[in-house]
Formats: sequence, structure tokens, C-alpha cells
Amino acid sequence: MDTRPLISRFTERDWETDETDGTVRFALVGLGWWTMDVVVPAIEQSDYCETTVLVSSSTEKAERLADENNVESGITYDEFHDGAAVEEYDAVYIGTPNAYHLDYVETAADLEKAVLCEKPLEATVERAEQLVEAAEDADIPLMTAYRMHTEPAVRRAKELIEDGFIGEPTHVYGNNTQPILEMIPDPDQWRLDSDVTGYGTSVMDLGIYPINTARFLLERDPIAAEARMSSPDEAFDDVPDQYATVTLTLEGDLPLVCTTSQHAQKDTQLKIIGTEGTIELSPAFHGEATLSLSSGSLRTTIEDVEYTAVEEMREEFDYFADRVLNDGEILPDGRHGLADLRTIKGIHEAADRDERVDL
Amino acid sequence: MDTRPLISRFTERDWETDETDGTVRFALVGLGWWTMDVVVPAIEQSDYCETTVLVSSSTEKAERLADENNVESGITYDEFHDGAAVEEYDAVYIGTPNAYHLDYVETAADLEKAVLCEKPLEATVERAEQLVEAAEDADIPLMTAYRMHTEPAVRRAKELIEDGFIGEPTHVYGNNTQPILEMIPDPDQWRLDSDVTGYGTSVMDLGIYPINTARFLLERDPIAAEARMSSPDEAFDDVPDQYATVTLTLEGDLPLVCTTSQHAQKDTQLKIIGTEGTIELSPAFHGEATLSLSSGSLRTTIEDVEYTAVEEMREEFDYFADRVLNDGEILPDGRHGLADLRTIKGIHEAADRDERVDL
Repeated sequence: MDTRPLISRFTERDWETDETDGTVRFALVGLGWWTMDVVVPAIEQSDYCETTVLVSSSTEKAERLADENNVESGITYDEFHDGAAVEEYDAVYIGTPNAYHLDYVETAADLEKAVLCEKPLEATVERAEQLVEAAEDADIPLMTAYRMHTEPAVRRAKELIEDGFIGEPTHVYGNNTQPILEMIPDPDQWRLDSDVTGYGTSVMDLGIYPINTARFLLERDPIAAEARMSSPDEAFDDVPDQYATVTLTLEGDLPLVCTTSQHAQKDTQLKIIGTEGTIELSPAFHGEATLSLSSGSLRTTIEDVEYTAVEEMREEFDYFADRVLNDGEILPDGRHGLADLRTIKGIHEAADRDERVDL
Repeated sequence: MDTRPLISRFTERDWETDETDGTVRFALVGLGWWTMDVVVPAIEQSDYCETTVLVSSSTEKAERLADENNVESGITYDEFHDGAAVEEYDAVYIGTPNAYHLDYVETAADLEKAVLCEKPLEATVERAEQLVEAAEDADIPLMTAYRMHTEPAVRRAKELIEDGFIGEPTHVYGNNTQPILEMIPDPDQWRLDSDVTGYGTSVMDLGIYPINTARFLLERDPIAAEARMSSPDEAFDDVPDQYATVTLTLEGDLPLVCTTSQHAQKDTQLKIIGTEGTIELSPAFHGEATLSLSSGSLRTTIEDVEYTAVEEMREEFDYFADRVLNDGEILPDGRHGLADLRTIKGIHEAADRDERVDL
């Protein structure tokens, strides 16, 4: 195939509204490494976003990080709930552990601020429903932070699929694995605490990538789930899915197999095989996404090594700001994120009951 | 990692017996494109093999192909069964459709010839059992033609796994897909005829690669099978698995997921993820196997574009000859091939009954 047109507009923002004007000022809630090392630089690079408030557990931490990053204000979680610095920001980014999302969305709704909330939307379906309803009742924009939706390699893959490049899809495979205890050497971290993470750790935190990305790329929702999980190691005693193997049936009887683990070598892949071609992202989910296309005997690989997680988050934030500034429709909205949490709940039920669960 | 030692002896024949002497003369039974385009040139390149007899349906075809390929004799299937040219060969290669293997092995056993038989060993477990027993009763060497066992990328991967490179394996994924009706544009071909192919087409012909290769690499047998299959297109009416998604549980509760189809883009992959590293073959199964190794943040890819299916078959034939000439043990023997056919039967039962089947 002639990949020149694809390459020439690879990073084109086809989602961007013409003549967007203005800036969305953000309060960032939850100042872990992702927020500070990825989100803050992404916003610095963005066209329509600015960080004006940092929200953390203590005044000392919030003010120190605000100072170090040239951000106007640093406030505590309590002060945030009390409406501190409310004139200084337009939108809230929620990067806290899963089970705390709801509280911050409720406050943002009270304060009439737009919300960009990390995925999964909450720890349980019930809390995520409350979260979505709080946003809907207050009529504030709510986006679930699926950065794959604005990852160029994923958007170009979606176009190719829509253009018939792979024919009819026959199989989807996704892997997302990482060694969480090497990345964060703390057995008491929140991702291994079921009260905070929710149904589990590997599917909630990692499996959600192939599940949501396949759904986005193919525009097919899952209708049934089968799963096997195990947690042989002590650090994973509180979560069922140190290792998980999931088979979802997408609409049209299309199998989506996901393998995922928080205790394995870092590896991400998404492969969609079809009757006429194959599209593969490998790596897929944490920057430097590499797109491989094959059709007949030809194979093309497009690697964008300069496109890291920071660039992915820059695009996500600018997409969100574009929608907020233009009052536009957000594709990965609250209902979209809620659907994935329902799927993940079904996956855990399928593993628990050791049978297929209809979604 | 330092891959120089690995690369310097990448194609080393670590299986070869020192000072092997002599030649095994072959009768090739079944003269389809694989035998003529791959096996004949592979034997020409080999160190210990020679083609001396070609066996086909008609005298005309057998003699014409013998003449064109400088082979001593061309005989018919009936003549083969009657012992024609019996002094001219030492071993029989059986490359016929699955359901005909047994007949030729029985004759080879009667004639006391060694046998190299294509995989799957037969169309059904029962016929494969008869086949293995015929060889055992006659005390002739019998090898199932698993060329991945002598594919250098696979052998090096096996060493790395044994050396602990990936730590504890956590997930295995294999894909093997091809568009059979584009490769052989005949809806009446034998691979789509259940009387000849056996339980089905995609798992029997393609899925067998990841299943056997994972088993070889990890030295773990499957203990349970789950599977989903469908055959929506008319050409696949007679077989259940135009598309198949299989989850095997290997010993030690290790999941092996296989996706396979005879009606999809050509793609082969085998990925073994572990706690410490990942080993991937992509492509994996039809020559030019490319080995990717990752551990920590490092990734190494070793691609041998000169190593085609002909070279793979050359190694397979020389391995077989090495064992025959030295009276050595054959790893992929009849029992080894029979085990995979039992697994495949179990996979089809699991799909039929829509439940997990213990193997």
C-alpha cells in the first residue's frame, strides 16, 4: 500500500475544531508521578490548557510543587472541597486513586467545573454511576481520560479499519503487562488494595487499555465475558488478578482476547486480524506506539519514537479543552467510561463463577 | 543483554551427532506443492538425505516429476504398497492429506522403513493411535514433522527460557492465520473436507504450530481446553473452525491462548511473557522467524531473512536422518505427535460442548 498519505498527516488533529479560541485553566487533583511527570509537561506543551491550581494532601506539598512548577496556587483536598481558588480554574483533572474519583467529581459538579477524570472511572460500577449522574445533574462536561482516542497511531488505525483495510475483523488480541512492584517497590501501594483500586488491579489498570481501544477502533461493544485469574504471590493477596486471561465476545461474534498482569515484563500489544489485512500496535499503550500494517504479502511499519506518553496526554488535554471551549461532544464521556467498568465487573464475575457472563 | 554469543551460534546444530556418516535415501509420498517446492529443495541442500523415489497417484505424474528432479524412480501409491523400488530407499516422508497417513505408515512398517510423517499425525486420535502402534510393532523410527523443533530461533528461545531469561512464564499467546482460499483457490480442497482433514481445518493445520511449539519451548503439556469456533462462510460448511479462539491451560496453570483461521490475513506470532522478560517470534511459523527478546527496558530483535521454510525443512530432514543413522532418540516421535492430536480433539469437544474440557 502507499503509506505516504498516511505518514504525511500521521499526527494531524482531525478532531480539532477550527478557530478554537481561549484556554482552559486546570486544577490538578492528585499529585503522583503520573500527574507531575506526565500531565504537567503535557499541559505545558498544549495549545489550549494551562495548570493554575495543584491539589494535594498537605499545604506544604501542594505549595512546594506549585512553586517548583510555576503554578499559581497549591491547595489541599479539603480546601478544594471548600471551594478554595475557585476563580482560578475552569476544569478539574482527577488523577487520584480510583476510589476517590467520586468525591472530587461531586465537588467539581457543585462548583460547575468541567472534569477530565482518569480511568477506570471509579472503583465500582455503583460509584461510577453516582459519578456520572453527579456530572449530568450539574450539566458539566465529563470526559474519561482515554488517551488512546487521540493517539495518532490509533486514529490512523481506526481510519484504515473504516476504509476496509482489514476486511472483516476475525480476531483481536491485546496484551498489557508491567512489573508494578519493580516500578513502585511498595507492597502496600493502592493498586494492590481492593478498597481503593476496586475489582482488582491488572484488568482495572491495564486490561482496560486493550478493552477500550478495541471498542473505540471497531465500534463494537462487548456482549459476553470469560476470564481466568490467579494471584499466587503474597503482595497480590487482596486482588484476584495478579494474572488474568480474558476473552470478550464483541458484537458480531468477534473474539477479543486480553492477557494482562501487574507482575510481568512490560509489554503492550494490540493486534486486529481481518480477512484482508492485519493492523498491529506494538508497543501500543504507553507512548511510542508503533503501527504495523499488513495486507497480502506486504507489511509496513510506522514507528514514532518521539511520541511519548507526554505527547499522548497533550493531545488528550487539548481534545478535552477543544470540546469544553466549543461546547462540543466528548466521545469518551462518563457513560463511555462507565460501560468499560461494567465490562470489567462482568470479567471479574466470569472469573469468580468460572463461566461465561453476558454483559 | 549481550546477544553476541547468541548470534554467533544462532544456526548451530546443537542437536547433531558428531561424525555422523552415511545418507538416508527417501521415498516422498504425496507430491503436492509443499513436497515439490519445499521438501525436494530442502533435501537437495541437506547433509544426510537424498531423494531416490517419488510416489504419486499416477505413473505419468510420478515419472515426470522424478525425471524433472533427477530422482531415480517414480512409482504409484499402489506400487508403493506392493513394495516397488523397495531397495532404493531407506525412509518414507509422508506428505499426503491427513486421513491417508495411516495407510502409508502401515506399508512402511511392513517394509521396515523409517518414517517422517507430516503433522497432524492423522485425521483422528484413533487412526493416529493405530499409526503409532504400527510403527512401534515394527520397531521402525517414526518422527512427526514438527520443523519448529529444529528452527534456530525456536531452539535459541528454548535455551533462553531454560536459562531463566523470562523468569516464570505468565502468559503465552500464539496466532497462526492464513487465507487458504486465496492460496489454493478451490472450495473443494481436502483441508476443507472433514473426511480427509479430520476434526477441522484451522486448529488441525495452523493452531497445531503454537500448541506444539509452546509445548516444546516450555516443556509443559496442556491439561485443559476451552474454545470458541465458527464457520460462517459456505466454503467452510464441512469444518467447524473457519475461525477459532482457544485457551489451553498448560501444566503449572499457565494460559496459552491461540487464535487461528484459514480465512484471514497471513500472520504468525508466538509470544511468551514472563515475570522477568518476554520472548517473541513474529513471524513465527513459516520461515524468516524473527526473535525479539525484552528484559527490563531493553529489547533486541534478531531477524534471519535468509532462513525460509526450505531451510527449516532441511534442518528437520537432517535431524531425522541424524537420528536414523545413529539410532538416536527422536524427540517429536509418534507419541509426541499423538499427544497434540488428543489436545486438538479436546479443543473441538470444548467448542462443541461450550465448556472447559480436561485433557
